[in-house]
Amino acid sequence: VTRIIDITRPLRGDMEVYPGDPPVSVTPMVLGGARVSALQLGSHTGTHVDAPLHFVEGGYGVDELPLDALVGEVVVSRQVLPAERLLLFDGNLSVDDAQELVDHGLRLVGTDRITIEEEGGDHPVHKLLLGAGVVILETLDLSAVEPGTYQLVCLPLKVEGCDGAPARAILIAP
Amino acid sequence: VTRIIDITRPLRGDMEVYPGDPPVSVTPMVLGGARVSALQLGSHTGTHVDAPLHFVEGGYGVDELPLDALVGEVVVSRQVLPAERLLLFDGNLSVDDAQELVDHGLRLVGTDRITIEEEGGDHPVHKLLLGAGVVILETLDLSAVEPGTYQLVCLPLKVEGCDGAPARAILIAP
Repeated sequence: VTRIIDITRPLRGDMEVYPGDPPVSVTPMVLGGARVSALQLGSHTGTHVDAPLHFVEGGYGVDELPLDALVGEVVVSRQVLPAERLLLFDGNLSVDDAQELVDHGLRLVGTDRITIEEEGGDHPVHKLLLGAGVVILETLDLSAVEPGTYQLVCLPLKVEGCDGAPARAILIAP
Repeated sequence: VTRIIDITRPLRGDMEVYPGDPPVSVTPMVLGGARVSALQLGSHTGTHVDAPLHFVEGGYGVDELPLDALVGEVVVSRQVLPAERLLLFDGNLSVDDAQELVDHGLRLVGTDRITIEEEGGDHPVHKLLLGAGVVILETLDLSAVEPGTYQLVCLPLKVEGCDGAPARAILIAP
């Protein structure tokens, strides 16, 4: 029996967002006897994926991220270590870390923080990773996860030509 | 080598939506040197999942759908046949079909049409399925899929207490 761990934070109308990001709203209505809702949110709200277009002029959008980077074996760790897919507890990357990971074949990196690098700078880590085609996954919920190796499935909304998108991400434990 | 087939339709600002549904908009902006976008869409826009709350008063929301219904073996077929998870090409269900599938342990049913039942009625099939806790997945793109058995991963946005949500869905072929 496989065990599925949801590593996605919930989206809700009153949630805190990154300064300047569009606010989140969820507005239920009744339509033809059914309940439906109007949703407003930012492309980098909650658990989300960054596409190259977030920082790279002319980069591709979230709908063109390779699915074989978003799906596959992942290492969940407190330390930075070489892996094809790496999720960090309470961690972010320096430029040197990022370059070394890229040199070792990194395809996806994630964190439970709201950003993969120290805030306040000119985003050199984002630019390095996205320029190298690495998928960045931010604002995860890793509170129910033990360090180890899992199967990751990270599926962002398929928003055409968009700089990023909210995602649902799960770990499948052996 | 596994093959991943994306069965999700893209979301974009000018896309057609179900009559009365909120329109879709994707509005890019620049924020702190980064490109981010404001997204507006309906909870049942594009490839999406229906939660019980869509039709069942007091039913649970999309964030509470069991992940082990959304992930697992699926039969993709032109005919209605008993399965735990069933995706139909250009098909929908009658009330009798739906009842028989539920009796045989159906947990998820999907279609590449915009709705799982004939339009114009009082939605008896939706009410039956959602009342039985079956996940409904609508507006798939099955154009690149051959009939057969696959692993399905269908991950809707985790919108707290919402009647449904846009989803990204993939098939993993053996």
